[in-house]
Amino acid sequence: MNRIRNLDLDSNVLVCDAGCILQDLDNHLDHCHIGGNVSTNAGGIRYLRYGSLHGSVLGLEVVLADGTVLNNLSTLRKDSTGYDIKQIFIGAEGTLGVVTGVSIVVPQKPKSMEFSLFSHSMADPLSLEFDYYILIEIGGSNSAHDEQKFENLFNDLQDSGTIGDGILLQGGKAEKMWHLRESMIYSHNKFGQTLTFDISIPVAYMEDAVLEMRRKFADLEINRRFSSSPDAPHLRYVTGFGHLGDGNLHLNVVVDRYNAETTHIFETSIFEYAAGHHGSISAEHGLGSIKPEFLHFSKSPEMVAAMHKIKHAFDPNGILNPYKVLPTEQ
Amino acid sequence: MNRIRNLDLDSNVLVCDAGCILQDLDNHLDHCHIGGNVSTNAGGIRYLRYGSLHGSVLGLEVVLADGTVLNNLSTLRKDSTGYDIKQIFIGAEGTLGVVTGVSIVVPQKPKSMEFSLFSHSMADPLSLEFDYYILIEIGGSNSAHDEQKFENLFNDLQDSGTIGDGILLQGGKAEKMWHLRESMIYSHNKFGQTLTFDISIPVAYMEDAVLEMRRKFADLEINRRFSSSPDAPHLRYVTGFGHLGDGNLHLNVVVDRYNAETTHIFETSIFEYAAGHHGSISAEHGLGSIKPEFLHFSKSPEMVAAMHKIKHAFDPNGILNPYKVLPTEQ
Repeated sequence: MNRIRNLDLDSNVLVCDAGCILQDLDNHLDHCHIGGNVSTNAGGIRYLRYGSLHGSVLGLEVVLADGTVLNNLSTLRKDSTGYDIKQIFIGAEGTLGVVTGVSIVVPQKPKSMEFSLFSHSMADPLSLEFDYYILIEIGGSNSAHDEQKFENLFNDLQDSGTIGDGILLQGGKAEKMWHLRESMIYSHNKFGQTLTFDISIPVAYMEDAVLEMRRKFADLEINRRFSSSPDAPHLRYVTGFGHLGDGNLHLNVVVDRYNAETTHIFETSIFEYAAGHHGSISAEHGLGSIKPEFLHFSKSPEMVAAMHKIKHAFDPNGILNPYKVLPTEQ
Repeated sequence: MNRIRNLDLDSNVLVCDAGCILQDLDNHLDHCHIGGNVSTNAGGIRYLRYGSLHGSVLGLEVVLADGTVLNNLSTLRKDSTGYDIKQIFIGAEGTLGVVTGVSIVVPQKPKSMEFSLFSHSMADPLSLEFDYYILIEIGGSNSAHDEQKFENLFNDLQDSGTIGDGILLQGGKAEKMWHLRESMIYSHNKFGQTLTFDISIPVAYMEDAVLEMRRKFADLEINRRFSSSPDAPHLRYVTGFGHLGDGNLHLNVVVDRYNAETTHIFETSIFEYAAGHHGSISAEHGLGSIKPEFLHFSKSPEMVAAMHKIKHAFDPNGILNPYKVLPTEQ
């Protein structure tokens, strides 16, 4: 169902079926159903500005395992009557109930949108290669103010030697830059099989995580310790990109061919790194059916037990999206 | 305990004991413990700008009914590993566990702070009386930009006849205005016993709620239908103030003396109004021990049943803050 049930432009609140597709500011980045966004607790590119779904979802309509319909499509920003039940369904991947309707704050599109690209070497950032690029989107209500603020920021960063160069883009060129950013994961596939990881770590470790995994996997590659099998894959690249402001790193390992044993080595190495740096093994893409067995890297046994309590309370027979999110109880 | 455990100024994340008092931007408005803020899901004056605690709390340390310590003091903005357990303790008023530590996003203080006051009559807003006043606080990084934006807004509102007058205040005068706003509830007590209500309703009904209750209670007063008792109280004022941007109305009934029977009439009238306008009977001050019996005005039987499921899962013997939040089960 993809019906808009109510749109209040005065208070910026939308109530709609879970099957609605909410397009983002540029009308081309997001083609997911809002119910899926909510159920996976999706973050995305503008999380830094607009925050978590736990803050912007105002209400949910949910069908429980016993058929009960929880009608909680509130449009109120403030409500402190009882437990905030909707929160447990955000990111539960359908294992506690099926989200069928969503009430959500939909911010107005900023009148002025600029887009800047910083790099830490001196030259046109797109005609030469650099070690790092940072994309910053600026949105406000006054284009002249926003450009002046960007200029001040640019001068500060250049004077302090933090960056080498930067450009300011608007309109179509800015859109192309977003497209480039969104295509990054697909470009990896030209160079081999790509294993993608989505971890959260303190921002200070985002560079170190890539360098450390690159060093570690190269070492394993050189010494052929990946696998006992003679057809163990060869490592091609270890790359990192993602959401610098959120500490959300997309870490990617490109190999010439898939191999389960080797994949397990990559997984445990990366998850151990995340766990060792107070990180999370899944920042914005949930656990699905692959990662429940790794949940212990991110959450203590007490936390996992608390999750099982909630699962038992809402789905005692385990009929909702089985084998997802939580590991099998010991 | 009021120990700061960690303060990361790069990522604006504070980890501290629940007993810490976080002072807000003006250092004089908030003297509550952060654990109490979290447990009551406090909103406050800057909710419109900084959003819900469900979005800004990153992690909690909670002691459960069986003595288990849930250590979930994450400092990560994005984490999608399992159910977001911390959410159920936000606003649970200690009935599911005792919050002992908090990890929270603490936004940087804006460099530039302005304060404006609009009224819908032409004159110095503070030397004459008006029907309505709106306070707006503006915070940004560039004082000249902020003042220009305020001027544009003011001109737009005046040209369209929305407002009659307005002033811009800074520094000490702005602080005094906040003080005035924060003292409003106390000033009622000079005129009698004040019964205060804290409801959430769509912004469009905030004026109507006050006028409608004023009309209804005046009618009851004139016809002396408040109470069968000869010493039934006399109505003095029905007033409203609050958070226009959030739809959070503080509705106050001033009477010459307290009377339980009359209070019940005020309560049910106001809660029925809120329920009839898709509102909530408690916006930001929880349910405590007084309002659980009124929970049905804001939440369906299915929602209340879901709350009981959570309560049973986490506090099966009902030892945590009994008689609070949830009504006695039928």
